[in-house]
Amino acid sequence: MRTIDWVDGAVEIIDQTALPDRLTVRRLHGVEELVAAIRTLAVRGAPALGVAGAFGVALAARLHEGDPVATAAAVHLVENARPTAVNLALGARRAAARLPEGPDAVLATALAVRDEEIAAAAAMAERGADLLAELCPPRPRMLTHCNTGALAAVVGGTALGVVIELHRRGGLGAVVASETRPLLQGARLTSWELGQAGIECRVAVDGAGPFLMARGEIDAVILGADRICANGDTVNKIGSYAHALGAHRAGIPFIVVAPESTVDHHTATGADVEIEDRGPDEVLGFRGTATAPASAGAVNPAFDVTPYDLITAIVTDRRVVRPALGERV
Amino acid sequence: MRTIDWVDGAVEIIDQTALPDRLTVRRLHGVEELVAAIRTLAVRGAPALGVAGAFGVALAARLHEGDPVATAAAVHLVENARPTAVNLALGARRAAARLPEGPDAVLATALAVRDEEIAAAAAMAERGADLLAELCPPRPRMLTHCNTGALAAVVGGTALGVVIELHRRGGLGAVVASETRPLLQGARLTSWELGQAGIECRVAVDGAGPFLMARGEIDAVILGADRICANGDTVNKIGSYAHALGAHRAGIPFIVVAPESTVDHHTATGADVEIEDRGPDEVLGFRGTATAPASAGAVNPAFDVTPYDLITAIVTDRRVVRPALGERV
Repeated sequence: MRTIDWVDGAVEIIDQTALPDRLTVRRLHGVEELVAAIRTLAVRGAPALGVAGAFGVALAARLHEGDPVATAAAVHLVENARPTAVNLALGARRAAARLPEGPDAVLATALAVRDEEIAAAAAMAERGADLLAELCPPRPRMLTHCNTGALAAVVGGTALGVVIELHRRGGLGAVVASETRPLLQGARLTSWELGQAGIECRVAVDGAGPFLMARGEIDAVILGADRICANGDTVNKIGSYAHALGAHRAGIPFIVVAPESTVDHHTATGADVEIEDRGPDEVLGFRGTATAPASAGAVNPAFDVTPYDLITAIVTDRRVVRPALGERV
Repeated sequence: MRTIDWVDGAVEIIDQTALPDRLTVRRLHGVEELVAAIRTLAVRGAPALGVAGAFGVALAARLHEGDPVATAAAVHLVENARPTAVNLALGARRAAARLPEGPDAVLATALAVRDEEIAAAAAMAERGADLLAELCPPRPRMLTHCNTGALAAVVGGTALGVVIELHRRGGLGAVVASETRPLLQGARLTSWELGQAGIECRVAVDGAGPFLMARGEIDAVILGADRICANGDTVNKIGSYAHALGAHRAGIPFIVVAPESTVDHHTATGADVEIEDRGPDEVLGFRGTATAPASAGAVNPAFDVTPYDLITAIVTDRRVVRPALGERV
């Protein structure tokens, strides 16, 4: 089952806001619908967003064929649905480059983006599992943040794909999934995907990760990336940086797994990335229940920056880079 | 209004599980009732727990007068209602030391414990605000974790008392309250208390604190302690250690405010403290809503240990200690 795909002229996604309660497939016919799905995180995760961006442009090319102004407006909408993830804009631009050739050419490129992400997931799983065998004691106990499984990609995933591959090889000790407030991708999605894969998992609040590492209960941290800057600084879900600080202090590897499409050579450092603030509602509520009095405001950066010196390794579908040792991407 | 008090032969508490939705005063007549209130965190916070421990023994002394076996059993129940906070057992033992003299003597000591915590809060607020003026730029932007206001004490509070005193002096820039999963004492209680004090506050998810510090948006972190070990290691609400790592990397002060009654000279280091695990339910749900699929487990340490070298200063009602400079408590 694919998280996102092109089926009979429309985009189909698994609605991630409904999980783990319900497994729902939504069919998106229009660009606005797709953009809304991206903004509400019904579809999310760097690789899946790349495919969503390309499919969004494929939809625009069909719906607005012969109207370049409307097409361009729709492409702009897709590209900018979320500002921090580099894959979304990249996927959209790759597909948009073929707009002069007509909708079929655009769709062919969008399908190629999808197929490349599928191939990348398999390559990352292999390479990442090999690296863990090299860096960790046998049967390592892993901590992961946010969701980086098949739901974040098309199939397979990034960091969670590595964890699942390690399990397949019989080499996984245990997994802690940090819950990942405010939208609980760890508690809702990662634990669900691990359950589907037959892997036991324990959820921890986001504040607990560094302490579990200090207590010697975690052998490595593994997570994804929404953007990797030229110097190796990595932008990922809020809370990643705190886990990197914890791993550094505990002396355990901190490993980022992401496809090459996440590497952004045009952005020098994390300080140059616009960090999306998603507004107060997600923080001040918890699945529809208010958590704070009406007088309270919120600050809600959706991502943070992990400086390259805290990153033991970045695993892509093509290579392993060691930023903490001074290697650049 | 006092968070906990002795009124007409019973213990009255503000029920903190009902805040911020409802301000409810509960009247506790029996030891079991009081212990249940402690376990469910209807009453919480190191200073308040010290008073709760003493009042619990005062209740036991009255209810079981003339029955030393039943009294001892009740005292044991109170002392061990939560294993990590040192104040609870300390308050209970101080009151219990006067059991041979009868219930009135026990109550007199319990009331003295209460009055000492009230006096300590005022002293900490003054001393802490003076220290912030020394360590921080003018009008510092503070981040605080968990709840350390009047609700955690009898009146006044510890770390939040310092923040409020700074506001009274016209010297507060801004406050971020980290929400403090799993029970959201920051989102629910700290933001409510700041609102009552006329102070604006922004809530952030626990994972965001270190990143806000890295972005230069926080001038100091200030929080409480459930136990301070002889070497300065400090046990506090889960998530405190991650914030200490963030403050250290950002080069900003990390300040612990707690009464002398929190200092535990009999425990050498944080590694010697039993950390309460509160079980999976708090993590896997929120106010009755499940956050994870039924297949998921959880790990739920209620506290963590911040090593002394990450602590710029400990402010008590009597002194300022600088553990990061090698000073011991």
